[in-house]
Amino acid sequence: MAKTNPGRFFEDYRVGETLIHAVPRTVKMGERALYHMLYPARHALYSSDVFAQSCGLPFSPLEELIGFHVVFGKTVPDVSLNAVANLGYAQGRFVTPVWPGDTLRAVSEVIGVKENSNGKTGVIYVRTRGLNQHDELLVDYVRWVMVRKRDLSAPAPATVVPDLAAAVEAADLVVPRGLDFSRYDFALAGEPHRWGDYAVGERIDHVDGVTVEQAEHMQATRLWQNTAKVHFDATARPDGQRLVYGGHVISLARALSFNGLANAQMIVAINAGAHANPCFAGDTVRAWSEVLDRADTAAPGVGALRLRLVATKGDAPPFALRDEAGKYRPEVLLDLDYWALIPM
Amino acid sequence: MAKTNPGRFFEDYRVGETLIHAVPRTVKMGERALYHMLYPARHALYSSDVFAQSCGLPFSPLEELIGFHVVFGKTVPDVSLNAVANLGYAQGRFVTPVWPGDTLRAVSEVIGVKENSNGKTGVIYVRTRGLNQHDELLVDYVRWVMVRKRDLSAPAPATVVPDLAAAVEAADLVVPRGLDFSRYDFALAGEPHRWGDYAVGERIDHVDGVTVEQAEHMQATRLWQNTAKVHFDATARPDGQRLVYGGHVISLARALSFNGLANAQMIVAINAGAHANPCFAGDTVRAWSEVLDRADTAAPGVGALRLRLVATKGDAPPFALRDEAGKYRPEVLLDLDYWALIPM
Amino acid sequence: MAKTNPGRFFEDYRVGETLIHAVPRTVKMGERALYHMLYPARHALYSSDVFAQSCGLPFSPLEELIGFHVVFGKTVPDVSLNAVANLGYAQGRFVTPVWPGDTLRAVSEVIGVKENSNGKTGVIYVRTRGLNQHDELLVDYVRWVMVRKRDLSAPAPATVVPDLAAAVEAADLVVPRGLDFSRYDFALAGEPHRWGDYAVGERIDHVDGVTVEQAEHMQATRLWQNTAKVHFDATARPDGQRLVYGGHVISLARALSFNGLANAQMIVAINAGAHANPCFAGDTVRAWSEVLDRADTAAPGVGALRLRLVATKGDAPPFALRDEAGKYRPEVLLDLDYWALIPM
Repeated sequence: MAKTNPGRFFEDYRVGETLIHAVPRTVKMGERALYHMLYPARHALYSSDVFAQSCGLPFSPLEELIGFHVVFGKTVPDVSLNAVANLGYAQGRFVTPVWPGDTLRAVSEVIGVKENSNGKTGVIYVRTRGLNQHDELLVDYVRWVMVRKRDLSAPAPATVVPDLAAAVEAADLVVPRGLDFSRYDFALAGEPHRWGDYAVGERIDHVDGVTVEQAEHMQATRLWQNTAKVHFDATARPDGQRLVYGGHVISLARALSFNGLANAQMIVAINAGAHANPCFAGDTVRAWSEVLDRADTAAPGVGALRLRLVATKGDAPPFALRDEAGKYRPEVLLDLDYWALIPM
Repeated sequence: MAKTNPGRFFEDYRVGETLIHAVPRTVKMGERALYHMLYPARHALYSSDVFAQSCGLPFSPLEELIGFHVVFGKTVPDVSLNAVANLGYAQGRFVTPVWPGDTLRAVSEVIGVKENSNGKTGVIYVRTRGLNQHDELLVDYVRWVMVRKRDLSAPAPATVVPDLAAAVEAADLVVPRGLDFSRYDFALAGEPHRWGDYAVGERIDHVDGVTVEQAEHMQATRLWQNTAKVHFDATARPDGQRLVYGGHVISLARALSFNGLANAQMIVAINAGAHANPCFAGDTVRAWSEVLDRADTAAPGVGALRLRLVATKGDAPPFALRDEAGKYRPEVLLDLDYWALIPM
Repeated sequence: MAKTNPGRFFEDYRVGETLIHAVPRTVKMGERALYHMLYPARHALYSSDVFAQSCGLPFSPLEELIGFHVVFGKTVPDVSLNAVANLGYAQGRFVTPVWPGDTLRAVSEVIGVKENSNGKTGVIYVRTRGLNQHDELLVDYVRWVMVRKRDLSAPAPATVVPDLAAAVEAADLVVPRGLDFSRYDFALAGEPHRWGDYAVGERIDHVDGVTVEQAEHMQATRLWQNTAKVHFDATARPDGQRLVYGGHVISLARALSFNGLANAQMIVAINAGAHANPCFAGDTVRAWSEVLDRADTAAPGVGALRLRLVATKGDAPPFALRDEAGKYRPEVLLDLDYWALIPM
């Protein structure tokens, strides 16, 4: 009996089946310290227990993206080991904060399958849920990936494509219990801009750039127990390149967005996301944002901004996104649509 | 009076003498987080407090190799600062788990000396013990190294070569108190294979590869306060290479072995070990294992496997080990013989 | 309204004004583990809770330089974003240890301004204080930097140059409460040399070298939330080099000084400091020290040494410092003058 995991192929997925992902993970303060070492993260709510307490929380939660990366990493052996491409995200919600000491596990449900016309690959849709040791929902999101078939002669399954909303409704955002921005200290947070200072359509160049190193992206990806070989094995691709984990670019861009969005403290939803082009070591990553929507919440002093966060590399022109044909420009790495909480 | 440590030379060692190694070290959750960042470690017992509790432990211990590396690092200034080669390990046993918050210290006894026929170097044998703040034995092992003589005219000491068993007897393995695999969750652990599924002689290719970076091996080695200059100083060797610490290869290979040995949770003994060839940054490390023996234990549901773990680099053929003359092939980095605990 | 921080320019500073630096930071054991991964730090007081307790402390504090780097990092957006050069330090005192769990914040007062004769830049002097969550003073120091003018036609302010002592007086050193070296364990600390063994004028070559990697210096700098772009963005300089943060060199040199100064446990003052030449990835950093002064303290068994710590790169001759014209030699990276506590 073969002992190693060959991964699943397209024809192995059945709509409605549940995938229990292995290796639960306890995360504590060490992971937070590493997050600050790996990313230029400065949002005060995740940096200071005292600041978090002044916002009504018991202490500083872990960055939402830590929870996302851990959960995502757990799904790799069951979802994307034989993936050709990670096609998109939708309906991501961060429901309960991840506190130091929590143990995270992940479960996915297959919610769609669609064989491609070439007969060699297909798209699978999964809804993944991250849970803590109390079985509370931390995060859930839909992701779809293109996966190889093992057996090209396997019959195509009935196509099921889930109906996915373009964005999480503002009314469906979950504000962490106790969050209160009515005594928010803008000086300590680093910028004076509040919810009302951001206009829909406004774009912000986050100015700073970070050049990616092999050691750094591998460490970041490994920290989340994501072991997809394209990230670690220089012999896995003909060009000898190791592909940077898309989530590394998300965290880099989010951290860079501090400069201009220092008060967009908490990520509460991921509406959509595309990894437009691959990122490699040596690329210098920059970011810009666009304000897509605004909403209020029931929590005191807490507003929500819907933001587009774009990461670029190289000599991208200002606010680079798509070319005239509507395709992502080659310098665009990431196009992420998310909701963040910000003081009113 | 010279203030810096010149290290000991061959003629400085006396059979029976005790070496008290400096700089005790408190290890906590930060070191665990770093272990997960530096190695693709996924064994569930070391990843999740909840999983560890389901196996009868109070919470997740630190990886045995963390304890080994810390203890080994402490011995370097007294044992291997002037070493030419680290020749072998024997009779290593992990006796008490290392818990977050423990303070580790190390003591060695010189148990053998043998001058080489060239009159320039000699082999010393030491038994090293790692202890916690309660003076409990965490780990002990025998190691022998080739050390330079300071004074080539120093007389050769009487040869003493200790009698070392080829392997730790199964009856001498120490199972951590409370360990109970009778309610072991194979789905969460990541693989269904139990003790009875492994046959003596079976070999497992662990598939994945990791390309080593300078920053990573230096960070890992430094973390264990191992400051041997060959690992850190690009000017120390004529070829400008920094030598990867042998223990880094052990941890890499052990982590890679998850894919096929996900349930070989705890290392309880190191029977033998050889660093067959040097590893350098840029090498892509892979691993394979061979089942050497099986034994049961008195603990509920807990069996033991004796495993050979081989790390290779480059385009090593499958299950590369020795050439026809019986020498290690040039692609072989590590040949480690150890006992692990696995659910029955 | 522009949302991003353009930084302050020379004409924006007024003598007497207070700068409240943003983003308080809670530091815990994760940061300590990272310090041991990033630097070859082995001083026993910061490595072992048990050793620290044997010296009268409740447990192991964080390295003083962790506090310094965190506080320094917070000042960057307000003080040195448009700096041309970091010119010097004076009157630095470490007043209260940083304990795991502390939340650090930083405040600066502008204490001097002096426009340069070229009319393009000026020097500003700030006194920075790092405080914990109880508003206790952790560290304070004076720093002066050369900053660009935004508007070359802005009138020169009245010159104010603070009167800075060449060194902190021995009588002004603050010994941490409870510190007692009367039962100090020299064997566990790693060297037998005590206060009385060091003579004024004595110089110590610390022997070991560390080759700097891009990933390492960026991670170290980022960990302290220092986001000055010259350290991270390979496109920021015409030569494509990323400048190593000067504080990284301080921590490297301090850690290397263990070999010869293992008992110089605590840094209590920084008298002066100059970053003589830039450091880049690929440089191999070495260090040497000179004993400048000795003093006793009121604490049991605790003496103080005033030390010059010099970091060099490349093939620096022994004890390289200045050329015949009195200028720093090109191999000299750092010339730091500090007080350390050492057992009598």
